[in-house]
Amino acid sequence: MLQPLVGVIMGSTSDWETMKEACAILDELQVPYEKKVISAHRTPDLMFSYAESAKSRGLEVIIAGAGGAAHLPGMVAAKTELPVIGVPVKSSNLNGLDSLLSIVQMPGGVPVATVAIGKAGAINAGLLAAQILGIKYPEVQERFVARRDEVRNKVLEAGELE
Amino acid sequence: MLQPLVGVIMGSTSDWETMKEACAILDELQVPYEKKVISAHRTPDLMFSYAESAKSRGLEVIIAGAGGAAHLPGMVAAKTELPVIGVPVKSSNLNGLDSLLSIVQMPGGVPVATVAIGKAGAINAGLLAAQILGIKYPEVQERFVARRDEVRNKVLEAGELE
Amino acid sequence: MLQPLVGVIMGSTSDWETMKEACAILDELQVPYEKKVISAHRTPDLMFSYAESAKSRGLEVIIAGAGGAAHLPGMVAAKTELPVIGVPVKSSNLNGLDSLLSIVQMPGGVPVATVAIGKAGAINAGLLAAQILGIKYPEVQERFVARRDEVRNKVLEAGELE
Amino acid sequence: MLQPLVGVIMGSTSDWETMKEACAILDELQVPYEKKVISAHRTPDLMFSYAESAKSRGLEVIIAGAGGAAHLPGMVAAKTELPVIGVPVKSSNLNGLDSLLSIVQMPGGVPVATVAIGKAGAINAGLLAAQILGIKYPEVQERFVARRDEVRNKVLEAGELE
Amino acid sequence: MLQPLVGVIMGSTSDWETMKEACAILDELQVPYEKKVISAHRTPDLMFSYAESAKSRGLEVIIAGAGGAAHLPGMVAAKTELPVIGVPVKSSNLNGLDSLLSIVQMPGGVPVATVAIGKAGAINAGLLAAQILGIKYPEVQERFVARRDEVRNKVLEAGELE
Amino acid sequence: MLQPLVGVIMGSTSDWETMKEACAILDELQVPYEKKVISAHRTPDLMFSYAESAKSRGLEVIIAGAGGAAHLPGMVAAKTELPVIGVPVKSSNLNGLDSLLSIVQMPGGVPVATVAIGKAGAINAGLLAAQILGIKYPEVQERFVARRDEVRNKVLEAGELE
Amino acid sequence: MLQPLVGVIMGSTSDWETMKEACAILDELQVPYEKKVISAHRTPDLMFSYAESAKSRGLEVIIAGAGGAAHLPGMVAAKTELPVIGVPVKSSNLNGLDSLLSIVQMPGGVPVATVAIGKAGAINAGLLAAQILGIKYPEVQERFVARRDEVRNKVLEAGELE
Amino acid sequence: MLQPLVGVIMGSTSDWETMKEACAILDELQVPYEKKVISAHRTPDLMFSYAESAKSRGLEVIIAGAGGAAHLPGMVAAKTELPVIGVPVKSSNLNGLDSLLSIVQMPGGVPVATVAIGKAGAINAGLLAAQILGIKYPEVQERFVARRDEVRNKVLEAGELE
Repeated sequence: MLQPLVGVIMGSTSDWETMKEACAILDELQVPYEKKVISAHRTPDLMFSYAESAKSRGLEVIIAGAGGAAHLPGMVAAKTELPVIGVPVKSSNLNGLDSLLSIVQMPGGVPVATVAIGKAGAINAGLLAAQILGIKYPEVQERFVARRDEVRNKVLEAGELE
Repeated sequence: MLQPLVGVIMGSTSDWETMKEACAILDELQVPYEKKVISAHRTPDLMFSYAESAKSRGLEVIIAGAGGAAHLPGMVAAKTELPVIGVPVKSSNLNGLDSLLSIVQMPGGVPVATVAIGKAGAINAGLLAAQILGIKYPEVQERFVARRDEVRNKVLEAGELE
Repeated sequence: MLQPLVGVIMGSTSDWETMKEACAILDELQVPYEKKVISAHRTPDLMFSYAESAKSRGLEVIIAGAGGAAHLPGMVAAKTELPVIGVPVKSSNLNGLDSLLSIVQMPGGVPVATVAIGKAGAINAGLLAAQILGIKYPEVQERFVARRDEVRNKVLEAGELE
Repeated sequence: MLQPLVGVIMGSTSDWETMKEACAILDELQVPYEKKVISAHRTPDLMFSYAESAKSRGLEVIIAGAGGAAHLPGMVAAKTELPVIGVPVKSSNLNGLDSLLSIVQMPGGVPVATVAIGKAGAINAGLLAAQILGIKYPEVQERFVARRDEVRNKVLEAGELE
Repeated sequence: MLQPLVGVIMGSTSDWETMKEACAILDELQVPYEKKVISAHRTPDLMFSYAESAKSRGLEVIIAGAGGAAHLPGMVAAKTELPVIGVPVKSSNLNGLDSLLSIVQMPGGVPVATVAIGKAGAINAGLLAAQILGIKYPEVQERFVARRDEVRNKVLEAGELE
Repeated sequence: MLQPLVGVIMGSTSDWETMKEACAILDELQVPYEKKVISAHRTPDLMFSYAESAKSRGLEVIIAGAGGAAHLPGMVAAKTELPVIGVPVKSSNLNGLDSLLSIVQMPGGVPVATVAIGKAGAINAGLLAAQILGIKYPEVQERFVARRDEVRNKVLEAGELE
Repeated sequence: MLQPLVGVIMGSTSDWETMKEACAILDELQVPYEKKVISAHRTPDLMFSYAESAKSRGLEVIIAGAGGAAHLPGMVAAKTELPVIGVPVKSSNLNGLDSLLSIVQMPGGVPVATVAIGKAGAINAGLLAAQILGIKYPEVQERFVARRDEVRNKVLEAGELE
Repeated sequence: MLQPLVGVIMGSTSDWETMKEACAILDELQVPYEKKVISAHRTPDLMFSYAESAKSRGLEVIIAGAGGAAHLPGMVAAKTELPVIGVPVKSSNLNGLDSLLSIVQMPGGVPVATVAIGKAGAINAGLLAAQILGIKYPEVQERFVARRDEVRNKVLEAGELE
């Protein structure tokens, strides 16, 4: 078993449907990760200890997904020196606009690297984690580039419309 | 010196311009309170210890004001059994819509009693704290009612328009 | 039969689907309550007499849910000294954004303790009522804390994702 | 003194700056009116008695202006059989979007004839009142048409741009 | 056959699903009306001749429903001295927010009496037309009041929740 | 004097501050144009006759600017076969969001080529008119390209930041 | 085979469901076109070479559809002198509001002729392309006018409602 | 002179007022960087060559700021394997909401690490770049942690309010 480099956390089990897209990308790019449900509001102490110990446990990037008044990414960012990627999960009433604003509008001092609402955002969270790790681990960057080229070629080779 | 019953906290000194309206109401209604700058993102541990010890220190209501990705009210609510009133401070770019959604859209389990954006909200936070305390302390309720009657009479007695 | 401490009111029978979540919480925490359909626009006199007599009938907190141009919480708050909790019910066209703004943006002088749009908000309205009562009735606060601890433990004990 | 046909009311003296535009139109079209500050939240009983007695006192149209969680037009409409015109006054934080939604999104059963946010809306409230009265009082309709023709001619006669 | 007093027009046959609610109210209150599809964009000349001749044909109120860039109510209002009620029909992408703003934000000079988005708005358009006519025709006002009382009594007599 | 190819119209003289940017571009690219205040709501007949006669008078493109419930571009488009470019003028309360939606959300059948809110949009309306004319008049296209190259070179040659 | 005058491009095959409406209009008006999937983000070099060569390959108008952070229309516009029509495709979370703002809010210098969100917009993109070509090719303008007249007649001849 | 590790680019010189905050942070944390105005729309080829050569020139992170239809961050991300941080610059009409959605709502495949609108976002872009570099360069991480501790201590040591 490889030492996880990325911690994928989410506020509730219902966020897994979205966040598994991030994990699928990490699997595809062979980036070792761990995943866990950690709720800012229901398990705040666990959230703090997770964030505080993240670096010493060997993590290098954290991906945090949450919806509504989404405090998980920002609070984890307040407690770690690692880069934190925030995924706004689509919320049931406001379609994730509340999640997005709660995550992205952080005050100067504590950044959260925010991606798009929902599954596209989760995919991109996995890719962004790989890009970040890629500046340290050339093989991750190579895999990222290889995947991107493959995607491009698929688009280019795609048959005619209709 | 009276034991404070209300803790008025805010994410930054720049929020004081708004939050002092809550304090003015508490002064007017003779509700003892304390006030403090506590930042969810810059002083997270202080926020947690403040929230955790609030009840044992004798507080009965917490008023928390913050702007942008406003996590202070919700995170304090996650760490105390006391009712928490959230004041969305007007933000510089999105006029407090981000503050409002970050505070009010809490997941089921951790309520924040949210009031209006800005100074009207801060005034109402002070009044709501008095209403809450009023169900336990009749004299606070009486002062609340007396103030409300006075305001009403002023409106009724107001001279003609123009 | 216990004397109700909380009045749960709503603008229409169609709001019950949302507001029953508040009642479920009050049942769970053994807080005695009454529930009633009272429409600000279709039964305005009933609304006023309900709000005016609420305290003398022994109520200590009112929870009011409404959608669209949601005037019930604010108008009840204008007619009682009790704390009023407003639940923005999801509306059919604007997803509850209209309900939220109609409830939360109260002018200075008449607070409404606003919670999230929809069912999460109704759950939190029940919990907030319990928190408010809890500062007067220690056994309610204890039950609130016990429930919160139980929820936390469930999250912590939850099995692995997938 | 002529019997007022239109009642122009507003939630606060600060709304007069906007609502005086409605009065200026009524003056111009020689429609007798009265004006008054009536607050839904600070003087609810006055609001109800005003609305209830409006018809018997000879009023035929009510114009109500309010901002933020603007409940005045809708609550007056709930208490009178007269047509009620609602003017969303610009609010300090959300630019009147909250006022607009609080006034226009009335549930089926209690209409409010809503006009634009701010001064343009107040002007149009005066004109709409005149149009409504005009179907009963031909001289009011004639003055409305004469004014409109005059405005049109001014636009047509206006000199070149720049 | 009675002379129609209200003209109910709409931009497209797909708006009928919404606008028939206005007609149902007019039927219920025995207000004679006509109904027609008139498109501001596809049949602009018909729209102008309809609006121009409306008064001479005996109409006293016009109800116009449209969605998206909804220009029908405002353009009809520009061509008639009669009061025009605008119904924002729910649009497929922006849920009627575009329809609402296109109808309500009229410039000073040409009012449109705007009601809520969708079916609730159409119901209220019918009721508002009756209120307007009611100041001239006492029997219409009586029927409006009788209907409102009946609705109130139904709410008051409604059985218990659940 | 050259025959105007572009008609620049706007709903009010107050729109000139914005729309003069379109004229400045047309001057710069030597595209002959005429300009005029035409109000959809205050001068509807003029608007129709202008649109109807535009082609026969030799115009080939129309640029129409308006704010709020901005009906001018769409109504002109309904009455001419020429391409119509709509400029959403910034409105005083909703910052032009109402203007934008009123112009861009046209129903299938009657297009308006919508550009950005405000002055940037007016500049682009002038450029878009030139691009459209450019497919017929090579010299206009050449001037468009020359201007674009010049702008690019200025950006490239710009000195260092700070 | 006729030389294509219009290039219809879209960011992904999933946009075809929307964009085929533009092609249907072009077919109906006998305007020769080509269609292609070109992704701004996945095939950026193809996008640039397509845009750069568009004019020399005989195209005279480009229609580009995209959703979310929709960069295709604006980037193509940056690389061609031809008029570019942008179609905001409805996005899964924000209903196309993000697509609309990403396309329409272009800075001064690089216009995109933006149409409505979704299928109505795609239809209008086809019609707008025909209007633009129509100023050069009278037969295209004639077909545009004939189609519009036909649509109008259908509306006028439509049977009664219900 | 040190080899720049971060490229700070922006769409226009007017963005410098915002983006200089990012540079100030990089200066403070002694992270070598370069800065440049590169416009997606006015200098598209420069943008592509900059992005394509960024890695080979030794850059490891790119910070890109833009406003309105902000295409710079996403298009650069499409052309480099390096992590790209996007700063939504406040726009003149829509307050940066258009900038935010144009940057953050990227489709799956091409991430942009988005931060808050305006100066707070630019500060956080600098800090996020340092966090990203910090996983490779321990001394950068140390400086980031030292700065954060210093900020925290300043908040903790801050004197009393008022």
